[in-house]
Amino acid sequence: MQDLSPSRLAMVPFVSVADMMRTVHAIGVERFLIELAGYIEDDFRRWPLFDKTPRIPSHSKEGVIELMPTSDGEVYGFKYVNGHPKNTAAGYQTVTAFGVLAQVSNGYPVLFTEMTILTALRTAATSAMAAKHLAPRDARVMAIIGNGAQCEFQALAFKALCGIEEVRLFDIDRRATQKAARNLAGSGLKVTSCTSGQEAVAGAQIITTCTADKQYATILTDNMVGAGVHINAIGGDCPGKTELHADILHRSDIFVEYPEQTRIEGEIQALAPDHPVTELWEVITGQATGRRSEAAITLFDSVGFAIEDFSALRYLRDQLARTGAFVELDMLADPDDPRDLFGMVQRAR
Amino acid sequence: MQDLSPSRLAMVPFVSVADMMRTVHAIGVERFLIELAGYIEDDFRRWPLFDKTPRIPSHSKEGVIELMPTSDGEVYGFKYVNGHPKNTAAGYQTVTAFGVLAQVSNGYPVLFTEMTILTALRTAATSAMAAKHLAPRDARVMAIIGNGAQCEFQALAFKALCGIEEVRLFDIDRRATQKAARNLAGSGLKVTSCTSGQEAVAGAQIITTCTADKQYATILTDNMVGAGVHINAIGGDCPGKTELHADILHRSDIFVEYPEQTRIEGEIQALAPDHPVTELWEVITGQATGRRSEAAITLFDSVGFAIEDFSALRYLRDQLARTGAFVELDMLADPDDPRDLFGMVQRAR
Repeated sequence: MQDLSPSRLAMVPFVSVADMMRTVHAIGVERFLIELAGYIEDDFRRWPLFDKTPRIPSHSKEGVIELMPTSDGEVYGFKYVNGHPKNTAAGYQTVTAFGVLAQVSNGYPVLFTEMTILTALRTAATSAMAAKHLAPRDARVMAIIGNGAQCEFQALAFKALCGIEEVRLFDIDRRATQKAARNLAGSGLKVTSCTSGQEAVAGAQIITTCTADKQYATILTDNMVGAGVHINAIGGDCPGKTELHADILHRSDIFVEYPEQTRIEGEIQALAPDHPVTELWEVITGQATGRRSEAAITLFDSVGFAIEDFSALRYLRDQLARTGAFVELDMLADPDDPRDLFGMVQRAR
Repeated sequence: MQDLSPSRLAMVPFVSVADMMRTVHAIGVERFLIELAGYIEDDFRRWPLFDKTPRIPSHSKEGVIELMPTSDGEVYGFKYVNGHPKNTAAGYQTVTAFGVLAQVSNGYPVLFTEMTILTALRTAATSAMAAKHLAPRDARVMAIIGNGAQCEFQALAFKALCGIEEVRLFDIDRRATQKAARNLAGSGLKVTSCTSGQEAVAGAQIITTCTADKQYATILTDNMVGAGVHINAIGGDCPGKTELHADILHRSDIFVEYPEQTRIEGEIQALAPDHPVTELWEVITGQATGRRSEAAITLFDSVGFAIEDFSALRYLRDQLARTGAFVELDMLADPDDPRDLFGMVQRAR
């Protein structure tokens, strides 16, 4: 009798949405965020060796589907992600994502995973990791303007990595603020619900903007931002979508992930194409200055980059043995004789 | 009690290697090839409306990992495929592939599938579909030079779609020819094993070259190719890999899938960048001439294009209900309130 079951080489671990939630709970959200931020920081430290390309978009009138590949020469990763602002009206998610990690040496996938939840975690971990290098040391209060899907992840990442003790929430939709406040009850954070952006930023050393409208909006006006503040701007992340008044940009030292992409998608699309920006990896490696002075305004104009997803995929892969939260998929044809693919199919009859 | 099971919207059908083999047997290989060729031909007929980009490669010294996306405006598809010539020495496959089909209107994946076997089928179906439009009408004998993983699929596709009755096999490795002859016994084809390329092409109206070496090779020399022959060249499919002597190219009418890609990867990389070629879709839609005369040599310089994978994904999706050969994967996070991703994770504790 011939053994027709798939060989070990043909199997790829798959982390479903349910398994991702199991993973988060097995590790703990804050510990997950701290450890993930460590992987992201490690990859920012070796930024120059990555194969970097802007994401590959397929645009339609309803939205966009993007592939975001990158490689460090040993491991290759990509994320599939869609953005469809009108989806929620039909009961679908605006953004869904999944990703794959593969070995460069033989091209075999080693991980296939949901990435909607993982992207939320990596975005928050990246924000807090950047703030560790840019925000005032004594920051204890953060304003979060925009209390949608990203809000609570941001709050916990800044608590875990930057020592934030109070979050001040504001959203034009009060139900979003109520939802976030409810979810953060018992987190150990002091949560203050505010009725205006102005009220939210009062006394905050860090301001996170994470609104979702796909349009030019002015979430922060110039008068709302005082000296010595760090702005973590993550909602301005595609062409035609920004959150900050241009006057704030002119007063800020601006830090970005990958200028080629940020100039198209980030807050700085409102500025001249040669407006000076600093790449975050250069601050992390000590090649560039982060915060120049106590009074400086630092702005992390974050749009999300493939390397952060790569770090998240690496981190998740390294947790598989620890959590066991995955199943194996028979994704790769593996005939005994590579030239005998047809024979393998034939014998399966 | 809250229902924590994934919603219907979050589930994506997955076709494993085992399910793909089940699908092929449920439908029958030849019928699968005929129906798949119909889907491919349909997509070639509407070629201009596709969003076409050359594949996105990530090269390393060991091989390449590629993403091949395309869209017809309603459906989006991409294939992940690797090419690692030295893999077989370590017991791995040279080429493995998987793919995804998604709805453009909301960005949701609707199919995730193995594509190693599916690619072998689509390559053969594309070859035979092209030959239907280019080869002499009375072709009954095909030579197949290179008897590796693609060989038997080619033989059956040409039998099913073009009426080929005899295949004449040659490979520099006799065991490959023996393997192919063994697999094709009982197929209804007359199978002749030959000891040279010269012997294989004797009396053949169609010559298929599908060797696998990643180097410039001369599988066919000028004297081996007589008038009135159709050459189906599928082994020359990446930079530095060709199979035909340039003299043959100069005597042939050359047909390609997508010139931008074929000039880099196909046989015509040996020719001047402005050497005239005809796009196959123009022949199929009647906008260009295929076979000019009985004596003409037609050459389909095939490298494989994303649209063929797209057709294969479409075809497979349409068979799911018929075969039931799939499982559903919980790939997409689907919170009741899209803004409450964190709450969904929290409640799963």
